[in-house]
Amino acid sequence: MRVLLPDLPAFRALALHDEHGVPGLDLDFYSTAHVPDGPADGVVLWLTGPHTRARLLATPGLAWALTLTAGIEHVQAHLPEGVQLYNANRLHDRAVAVHAVAGMLGAARGFHRFRDAQARRDWASPALPDHSGLSTLDGLKVAIWGHGHIGRILEGMLEPFGAQVTGIRSATPPEERDAALAEADWVVLLLPSTPDTRGIVNAELLSRLKPGAWLSNLGRGNLIVSDDLLAALQSGHLGGAVLDVTEPEPLPKDHALWGQPNLILTPHIASTTEDLVPRGARLTRDFLLDMLNGREPEGKVTAGRRY
Amino acid sequence: MRVLLPDLPAFRALALHDEHGVPGLDLDFYSTAHVPDGPADGVVLWLTGPHTRARLLATPGLAWALTLTAGIEHVQAHLPEGVQLYNANRLHDRAVAVHAVAGMLGAARGFHRFRDAQARRDWASPALPDHSGLSTLDGLKVAIWGHGHIGRILEGMLEPFGAQVTGIRSATPPEERDAALAEADWVVLLLPSTPDTRGIVNAELLSRLKPGAWLSNLGRGNLIVSDDLLAALQSGHLGGAVLDVTEPEPLPKDHALWGQPNLILTPHIASTTEDLVPRGARLTRDFLLDMLNGREPEGKVTAGRRY
Repeated sequence: MRVLLPDLPAFRALALHDEHGVPGLDLDFYSTAHVPDGPADGVVLWLTGPHTRARLLATPGLAWALTLTAGIEHVQAHLPEGVQLYNANRLHDRAVAVHAVAGMLGAARGFHRFRDAQARRDWASPALPDHSGLSTLDGLKVAIWGHGHIGRILEGMLEPFGAQVTGIRSATPPEERDAALAEADWVVLLLPSTPDTRGIVNAELLSRLKPGAWLSNLGRGNLIVSDDLLAALQSGHLGGAVLDVTEPEPLPKDHALWGQPNLILTPHIASTTEDLVPRGARLTRDFLLDMLNGREPEGKVTAGRRY
Repeated sequence: MRVLLPDLPAFRALALHDEHGVPGLDLDFYSTAHVPDGPADGVVLWLTGPHTRARLLATPGLAWALTLTAGIEHVQAHLPEGVQLYNANRLHDRAVAVHAVAGMLGAARGFHRFRDAQARRDWASPALPDHSGLSTLDGLKVAIWGHGHIGRILEGMLEPFGAQVTGIRSATPPEERDAALAEADWVVLLLPSTPDTRGIVNAELLSRLKPGAWLSNLGRGNLIVSDDLLAALQSGHLGGAVLDVTEPEPLPKDHALWGQPNLILTPHIASTTEDLVPRGARLTRDFLLDMLNGREPEGKVTAGRRY
């Protein structure tokens, strides 16, 4: 079995004849500068651009592709018929949940405002607690929209902080979903980008959120209509937003979202950790061992899956 | 029994003859503009300055003082002999623990760096995860120095994030303390300010921390020798610091700590929440009911208590 892997040291190590390697495979390595020729059975897609990805997916003889991302829409669009796709939710789930909690706690404790004050060398201590805008998550209602594996981890992490979590799935009846959104102090988006979810957070939906509610998006930028979000922030209807993904992405220099004081932006790094590449290589090793031993690997993407 | 209370609506409500009030007491109210004359049995100190505090503590006939703070050194210095002091740790413990977690998670997820990048309209996405400086708290060693009630709450909150907590108390043998500090990825200071703890974090101690370790101070500013902290940040020996308290406090405009990129400052608000005043009034009500009914209220400060 010939497999194409990213040309990174942690993946090169899979070709070694030691306890880190996967014996019995013909491994070859790609980069943006070099995509190997000839047929291959599988390809592991990661940390590359659309051009290299398209070339890799055109490899003759391809039976499967493993993307080491959680999202799949960037691969699905170029996936030849008959090639089985796998993804790697479990590589990202925990860091994304941690990032979500970090964003919520940071907003509640005013870290973004105090960072801005620090840049001005301003000891911005509120005179009285009443109008400090500071809180904990105690008693807050949190709607997790897209309540899969990440959502369940997040729910467990929020519990000790006294937040009351409601999960919304595609199977949740619309009236239940709308009730949960209407009473939420925080709405956390963990949805994938699909034809059903694109632009799902628009002016109409935002108007039905509680005044002062906060929005957190860790799914995909195009879940939200950016201009509608901007209007809801500028009108003061929304308390604020924490975005790890945007539409467009990256956000252009002149985009008005940059300058919103109650918008907290991170550049699509919710799942990034310094040890992500070695962890990705370990997951790939487990995946390849499953393939070699005739076991079905985790992460099979089945058609029609929603959220 | 005559008691002096802060002149705030939530405390005024304690004088009402309804379910919020405390019947059978003679309540009077002080502000910076007005301190009532005549003797009183007790005084509840909060949200006032040193001058008013000193005048209140000079009230004739005083048997007790309740400070609705966790720290006591600002009251102890002016406390007349024979006046029993009470404090209000439980009013602040949970918010301080939440604030500590928020600071640690925010630092690990780079929210301070990305806030700075947002001000520059810079989509500061790291090219590869390896040098992103991003992590979760999984597997990190956390030394909580001053392991009382807040420390225990904090320990419980850190557990789901996979941090390994060691608590350091005044009774911890020095060699155990030093070992815990030397291997800590995070040192969280929750110590009170006492003659034993002032300047306890100095150049010598900082040099014994692990390179790249982070420091969080939620105790009192003078636990740390500011110039030594500055040097440890500038040399790169420390990974960074999260300070809610400083020495001096507030930090003067021209202080070099303001400009340290890996220093995250909040203006002594770790225990502040919008509902803090009503919560303080409720605690005061319970305290006064205990006093009236001959029960010993919580929070009695005993001489010689350390941490």
